[in-house]
Amino acid sequence: MIKQRLEALRQLMQERNIDIYIVPTSDFHESEYVGDYFKARMFLTGFTGSAGTAVVTKTEAGLWTDGRYFIQAANQLEGSTIELYKMGEENVPTVSEFIKEKLQEGGCVGFDGRVINTTLGENFLSIVKEKNGCLKVDEDLVGMIWKDRPALSKQPAYALDIKYSGKSSAEKLLDVRSQMEQEGVDYHILTSLDDIAWLFNIRGNDAKHFPIVLSFVVIGKQDAHFFVQEGVLNEAICLEMKKNKVQIHKYEEIYEFVGHIEENAKVLLAKGKVNFRIVSNLPKTVTIIDKLNPTTPMKAIKNSVELDNIRKAHIKDGVAFTKFMYWLKTNIGKIPMTEITASDYLEKRREEQAGFIDLSFDTICAYEANGAMMHYSATEESCAVLEPKGFLLVDSGGHYFEGSTDITRTMALGPITEKQRYHFTLVLRSNLNLASAKFLHGCCGQNLDILSRGPLWEVGLDYRCGTGHGVGYLLNIHEAPNGFRWKIVPERNDSAVLEEGMVTTDEPGVYLEGEYGIRTENELICKKAEKTEYGQFMEFEPVTYAPIDLDAIDPTIMTEREKDILNNYHKMVFEKLSPYLTSDEVEWLRNYTREI
Amino acid sequence: MIKQRLEALRQLMQERNIDIYIVPTSDFHESEYVGDYFKARMFLTGFTGSAGTAVVTKTEAGLWTDGRYFIQAANQLEGSTIELYKMGEENVPTVSEFIKEKLQEGGCVGFDGRVINTTLGENFLSIVKEKNGCLKVDEDLVGMIWKDRPALSKQPAYALDIKYSGKSSAEKLLDVRSQMEQEGVDYHILTSLDDIAWLFNIRGNDAKHFPIVLSFVVIGKQDAHFFVQEGVLNEAICLEMKKNKVQIHKYEEIYEFVGHIEENAKVLLAKGKVNFRIVSNLPKTVTIIDKLNPTTPMKAIKNSVELDNIRKAHIKDGVAFTKFMYWLKTNIGKIPMTEITASDYLEKRREEQAGFIDLSFDTICAYEANGAMMHYSATEESCAVLEPKGFLLVDSGGHYFEGSTDITRTMALGPITEKQRYHFTLVLRSNLNLASAKFLHGCCGQNLDILSRGPLWEVGLDYRCGTGHGVGYLLNIHEAPNGFRWKIVPERNDSAVLEEGMVTTDEPGVYLEGEYGIRTENELICKKAEKTEYGQFMEFEPVTYAPIDLDAIDPTIMTEREKDILNNYHKMVFEKLSPYLTSDEVEWLRNYTREI
Repeated sequence: MIKQRLEALRQLMQERNIDIYIVPTSDFHESEYVGDYFKARMFLTGFTGSAGTAVVTKTEAGLWTDGRYFIQAANQLEGSTIELYKMGEENVPTVSEFIKEKLQEGGCVGFDGRVINTTLGENFLSIVKEKNGCLKVDEDLVGMIWKDRPALSKQPAYALDIKYSGKSSAEKLLDVRSQMEQEGVDYHILTSLDDIAWLFNIRGNDAKHFPIVLSFVVIGKQDAHFFVQEGVLNEAICLEMKKNKVQIHKYEEIYEFVGHIEENAKVLLAKGKVNFRIVSNLPKTVTIIDKLNPTTPMKAIKNSVELDNIRKAHIKDGVAFTKFMYWLKTNIGKIPMTEITASDYLEKRREEQAGFIDLSFDTICAYEANGAMMHYSATEESCAVLEPKGFLLVDSGGHYFEGSTDITRTMALGPITEKQRYHFTLVLRSNLNLASAKFLHGCCGQNLDILSRGPLWEVGLDYRCGTGHGVGYLLNIHEAPNGFRWKIVPERNDSAVLEEGMVTTDEPGVYLEGEYGIRTENELICKKAEKTEYGQFMEFEPVTYAPIDLDAIDPTIMTEREKDILNNYHKMVFEKLSPYLTSDEVEWLRNYTREI
Repeated sequence: MIKQRLEALRQLMQERNIDIYIVPTSDFHESEYVGDYFKARMFLTGFTGSAGTAVVTKTEAGLWTDGRYFIQAANQLEGSTIELYKMGEENVPTVSEFIKEKLQEGGCVGFDGRVINTTLGENFLSIVKEKNGCLKVDEDLVGMIWKDRPALSKQPAYALDIKYSGKSSAEKLLDVRSQMEQEGVDYHILTSLDDIAWLFNIRGNDAKHFPIVLSFVVIGKQDAHFFVQEGVLNEAICLEMKKNKVQIHKYEEIYEFVGHIEENAKVLLAKGKVNFRIVSNLPKTVTIIDKLNPTTPMKAIKNSVELDNIRKAHIKDGVAFTKFMYWLKTNIGKIPMTEITASDYLEKRREEQAGFIDLSFDTICAYEANGAMMHYSATEESCAVLEPKGFLLVDSGGHYFEGSTDITRTMALGPITEKQRYHFTLVLRSNLNLASAKFLHGCCGQNLDILSRGPLWEVGLDYRCGTGHGVGYLLNIHEAPNGFRWKIVPERNDSAVLEEGMVTTDEPGVYLEGEYGIRTENELICKKAEKTEYGQFMEFEPVTYAPIDLDAIDPTIMTEREKDILNNYHKMVFEKLSPYLTSDEVEWLRNYTREI
């Protein structure tokens, strides 16, 4: 079947004189997670992983993906004639290097310009220019052969009340225009879906666990233009838009609209976010200012209404999680449990909470060796049976009207080995050390990361990922521009100065392949501490409320300071959650939040 | 007198139609410490600190300096009509911002193009261009009014034997040319004096405590050109130069020489290091590759011969310092002592050591409140009498054939307050926490700095400087590109990845204006620790050997880990030094390095 699809694609390529065609994993908005409509790369190759790029020439086809998917991709590509290119491995060319090598003088490279961002598109453009060739980017060739393609999601949008957002869209537009004035631009093109949802105080349901509305925005000095599918906005939203001088257009009209922007206009846009076709359609004389969207840092700094809500969301989420943990700890070995039934139980507890909207991502519920796979996802066929021993790692969260949550707990289901206890305690120390940081304003994640990694580095351990990421408010669970990471990765844009109101996860871990995985994750609100003659000091407020499994710790390798921090944290957890639990649960929680 | 100098300068400015004249603290080589000939900014303003820039307009005069000198500069500028601009403080303009604000349309900015580096010069050029004005950079106006200016230093150079340098100049030239080839350049212009001294394995005496030879170098693909004052090279050095195909020219001929470089040549140079006049004299068609001097990272990574020597130098230096500390502790209150007699006593102990060449910088010997001034320098008139109470801060070091040292100890001369003891212990904890870091290769100072500042930030304290700097081998005591600093300051170039063989100081402090200053400084050699599946781990070897005053600590606020680190350090100090001390000194040292 895959061979036939490749053949059909090659036929279309030949008719158009296209030598190389690129099919990435992306929607029209550079979203991290994409809806089914956008899974063209999956359709073409049969590889179902969340990240990967397919490249098809007249005689070859390749799929590029990263280390998370090497095994899965190799299996799924078997017999397809598509070669697997393992990204990051030695002597494996990148997509650009491959194209540079394969493209003949005067050749033509094609892709759907709507699913490639401008930075990447300009990179491909420079490759074809070197070969005196050309780009063809105005057709979606995979779409033409994909007969049973799922429809583009078109879910109704809803307004997020000011009691949740804390700031009106009118005020937010003012803030954005003030930034536009500082940059001296006439227009701002905004296409990232979480930025748009934040700006207009609307939410939707057009991508799994990512409550956004497929849309584009062009903001002018006085008015704005909102490109969105017909029928998704209700009357109240339309009225609010009109009040804010936001004109509503059809979703696909963005491409024509930008072609009519005044020829001498200055336009602010983030080339890494806006798709190549939009920028290609701008009049050639327009001046582009390529900068971070002004909304991105604004959205990251939660206002006091949002922060109060977030604390409430975390109480709800903590109640749900603690009920789950109580059930798990008291029933393991007595009733049958699997990774899937356990995560279903947890999901039900979240659904019971008022204001619950959705999970904030697919729950990772991973027993023992499965926990060592950072992005493990259990399937009905393969999922592990839980036994009264070893570690269960659960990374999960919910979207509530009061905000989004992301929590990981690793729990001992019974006896654990001394090595497990040792590693669990190291990870806990890492988590507590970062959470209790006090630092001068001006620090970014890079300055603080060693507080978390230090206890692991001390004994030659590490985790192969950042220590934490920003968290959106009923939006993307991975939100820029704040994060904890020791090496700056420019394209991740997660090393901003830590500002009051930012929410960042603190999630160190130990992952031993074939053995077990441990991760302890709390969210931290950044707050002002005292201001002295040396400057403004900052600190964190942990806002995730759930016990950290005392059954799995070794207090003898913790400092007095670390024990104090843990005891204070557990005291807070008990105070916040106990009013919402049954008396059995309260007694259980009292024990699991006891002083050590 | 300062007023008259300003008047005379303004007269010269007026004759030349110069509106703003800039007088930095620099020689022709961007050296940190400059010979007396180059102290034009000091002559003009009366401020004697090592860092600062004077800017004179028709009606105003300003001096910019950093936090180390705020107190001293305020005192020295009193009554001079020169305003102090505290760099880095809120709402204080930078020199560039000041000039941008003050320069009128069509105005003229002047400076001596030999004492402003190219990066800065181009910055000033862009400011005057914005105002349609001009630069005048071919005259040294302060030189014209400075009648009794000291002569340019012209001390003999000497060769550094291979048993000290560990690598021949021929090999070093090969390494540099290999880098030049990688960059595809025809020439490399090298003007920083420590790089030149390192490259040619020569030392000199042309700046106080900075054992270099005033000179410039142009390296071609096969040969090289050395611009140096006549008569400073001995026959052996000249012979070695000839062997390495290095042609010798007069010092000042560099400016004409670079004008004759082929018009289509590619030239590697560090714009932040090479003076503006040299670059201005290059043919306009030459392509400049603006990069760090290849010698800078090579020099910072000490080879094994250098490291072995450095350990020997520190034993000598530690013996001298410990003899001094013994004398101080046993004689205070019994014989008269001042800041100056104490530092003289210390200098004598250093001079007694074999291979001693010079102090590596002016000793800071600062009693009580004087210690709060980070770069205090006692004068005969003002120096404090030492009493048997409070803190004496001594920051000092020596140049030996075996390397350069930099050590600070703060010592209780008798009873101290509880606040002093508390702060001393915090500073000690800061020092020990950084010294005992274990980290993955790839970390730079920015990642590690919080280990040192953490204990101070915890209680709202800080120090207004970096935590540490690289140390040269019988060269600059402040050497790039390694350092410890939480905010990157690009022009300092001190945030390189920490590599095996780099030597960096670890010198946190507490400075309370009008009360006291505390600093505890050790040098750390960066070494490889274990390599695991997560990567190459790195650690430090403290290479400074002298007791940290146990009379001043409060062990009850130290963790067990911190006490262990201190005890191990003191044990090593005793083992290294005791063979070279008198029996009285040994008994004293045994007590002062006892376990706590």
